[in-house]
Amino acid sequence: MVTNHQILFNKDTPTGLPQPGITTKPGSSEIDLDNVALNGGVLTRNIAVSLDPTMRNRMKGDIGYFAPPYQVGKPVTAIGIGEVIRSEVDTFVPGDIAYAWSIGIEEYTIHPVAATATFRKLDQNHLSNGLSITTYLGAAGMAGMTAYMSLKEIVGDLKPGNKMFVSGAAGAVGQLVVQLCHQAGVKVIASAGSDEKCEFVKSLGADETINYKTHDLKTKLKAFAAETGIHYYFDNVGGDQLEAYISNAARYGIIVACGYISGYNVDKPEDVVYPKNLFNIVTKELKYQGFLVTSFIPKWIGKFMQEVPQMLAEGKIKNREDVTFGVYGAEDAFLRLFTGDNNGKVAVLIDTERAERWNLGKQIQNSNVWK
Amino acid sequence: MVTNHQILFNKDTPTGLPQPGITTKPGSSEIDLDNVALNGGVLTRNIAVSLDPTMRNRMKGDIGYFAPPYQVGKPVTAIGIGEVIRSEVDTFVPGDIAYAWSIGIEEYTIHPVAATATFRKLDQNHLSNGLSITTYLGAAGMAGMTAYMSLKEIVGDLKPGNKMFVSGAAGAVGQLVVQLCHQAGVKVIASAGSDEKCEFVKSLGADETINYKTHDLKTKLKAFAAETGIHYYFDNVGGDQLEAYISNAARYGIIVACGYISGYNVDKPEDVVYPKNLFNIVTKELKYQGFLVTSFIPKWIGKFMQEVPQMLAEGKIKNREDVTFGVYGAEDAFLRLFTGDNNGKVAVLIDTERAERWNLGKQIQNSNVWK
Repeated sequence: MVTNHQILFNKDTPTGLPQPGITTKPGSSEIDLDNVALNGGVLTRNIAVSLDPTMRNRMKGDIGYFAPPYQVGKPVTAIGIGEVIRSEVDTFVPGDIAYAWSIGIEEYTIHPVAATATFRKLDQNHLSNGLSITTYLGAAGMAGMTAYMSLKEIVGDLKPGNKMFVSGAAGAVGQLVVQLCHQAGVKVIASAGSDEKCEFVKSLGADETINYKTHDLKTKLKAFAAETGIHYYFDNVGGDQLEAYISNAARYGIIVACGYISGYNVDKPEDVVYPKNLFNIVTKELKYQGFLVTSFIPKWIGKFMQEVPQMLAEGKIKNREDVTFGVYGAEDAFLRLFTGDNNGKVAVLIDTERAERWNLGKQIQNSNVWK
Repeated sequence: MVTNHQILFNKDTPTGLPQPGITTKPGSSEIDLDNVALNGGVLTRNIAVSLDPTMRNRMKGDIGYFAPPYQVGKPVTAIGIGEVIRSEVDTFVPGDIAYAWSIGIEEYTIHPVAATATFRKLDQNHLSNGLSITTYLGAAGMAGMTAYMSLKEIVGDLKPGNKMFVSGAAGAVGQLVVQLCHQAGVKVIASAGSDEKCEFVKSLGADETINYKTHDLKTKLKAFAAETGIHYYFDNVGGDQLEAYISNAARYGIIVACGYISGYNVDKPEDVVYPKNLFNIVTKELKYQGFLVTSFIPKWIGKFMQEVPQMLAEGKIKNREDVTFGVYGAEDAFLRLFTGDNNGKVAVLIDTERAERWNLGKQIQNSNVWK
């Protein structure tokens, strides 16, 4: 028997920030790795998990969210990477490194057979190119896919000279959107929550930045829009920033609706800010389209895995990670996503020894440069 | 010299209903038809004009609307049809029937040369197929193009068995959307403002109707959505109905954003209702797209003019018109658009004698069936 340290969901928190120790709490259980029943599934030793804003919506009970609510007393689940240590499915054998859409924030997880259908194997090409394992949860993982695939599907060809507004630009997805747009010759204005983050985003290629806590959002966007208007908006936050974009949109502007983080942690539901200028959707002929990256993966995963990890390994795309060590650090790390104290993609490294096999030390050092 | 009876714009009315005699007023001027200077343009004797909700937004001063605000003391302009009586452009000669995007609500209009670029000629095929001239302002005109082209462009192929919600379904555009969807095998739920209008919409093929003044919108939409959700929404009104659709949308639902009439006549700007569930745009992967029909005309006008007037002439598509006789009736007719006292497409017939050449009498009779 070994101890399986876990972060357990403890209490539905419909409004306000999630509270470590109340919304979630540290816990543990005993597990017999050799004999525990798998019922046809797979047992993983977990290496790392990704913490994403979208998880906040699963802490609100059954609100009709597309992903099921967390269950009190069970581990919080997240996107993660684990090493298969026992398997009763044909597709995975012990030693395989599996990228899973739902893994517990814990050291070991038993996956029912149905869940293994969403596993993807990381192969030696990916594990030996110098990228850290956490990068496969961020820029080379869901965050990267989100940025890359949604631009491909919803915007299509990014036209050089066109203008893009990216909100939440220092976050996991935003930082990649800034770079992909900049590389395509698109002029970028990007918002973030501190001067230091704005500086980081500028180093990635943003032409202008907005510290939304201290700058006048509307004035800055209006000046950037100038005569042409702003052609694209990559929306991670909704609320005031969405409204300000709509007011400064070019005709035929496109809004890639990725998230609505401004509404996730309000004290009262009526505090969520919604735009009051939707009639401009009609008059400017805007397209406002939401997406979940899972819808685009079948079409784009091949191209993504060929291109993006390589670009990251060569330094053509940078990524900033906020890595926490150990299961029990996950509660504070999750909170940082919403207070804005995170620096880039938030991940939790559960198994440092395994992670270091893939050159993680170097990457973590890089990551710390930004802290 | 003859008298040119006109409806003049009289006073910006930013909020509330437009007021006949205050927002607009009857007027007249003298015009010498043979000698008035055209400065390179065209003089028309006007036959009929279309009254559209979108005109309301040009009565609010300069609000950044895509069409310029009306000028106090000048005739209110609208989409209309006139007979050219003098021309200094090469493309039109006296006797031509011109469909114009902007014509005064008056008996005679002098069009500057630039304005004639948007004229379209109605040919003998169209004028001899039994359709009334007002139909070329409605089902065979902008309203028809709006319904037909926006479905083609934004929805694409209507899938038989899918579900559509149409708001403002008894209006000029809505009644055609209902029929085009029904004919494509789409199940339609349609909203209108009276039981009589609901009955009319049902006769056009709607499977379910909602009298939004007396029925519970949310309950009806939810029942219609059932397990599948509602795949499409043709939005003429915005506000509560838009919010209710979003709550009952199928995954990948499409919103064709045609108008926002619920917001045009509020007493105070803060009375406009905006949906408070935009996060579902993300989670349901909805596409919410606005359009102005002018953007689609170059691509679709040929196909439209081949198909739709013929379908109307053969009775395969029905249209209900609310025709007022004489320039001075336009003020009340315009108001009816917003009180809901109109019955279908609102048009004003200015020149009955010319209109009757094209069999208008029969059509007006048909139209009156619905009154």
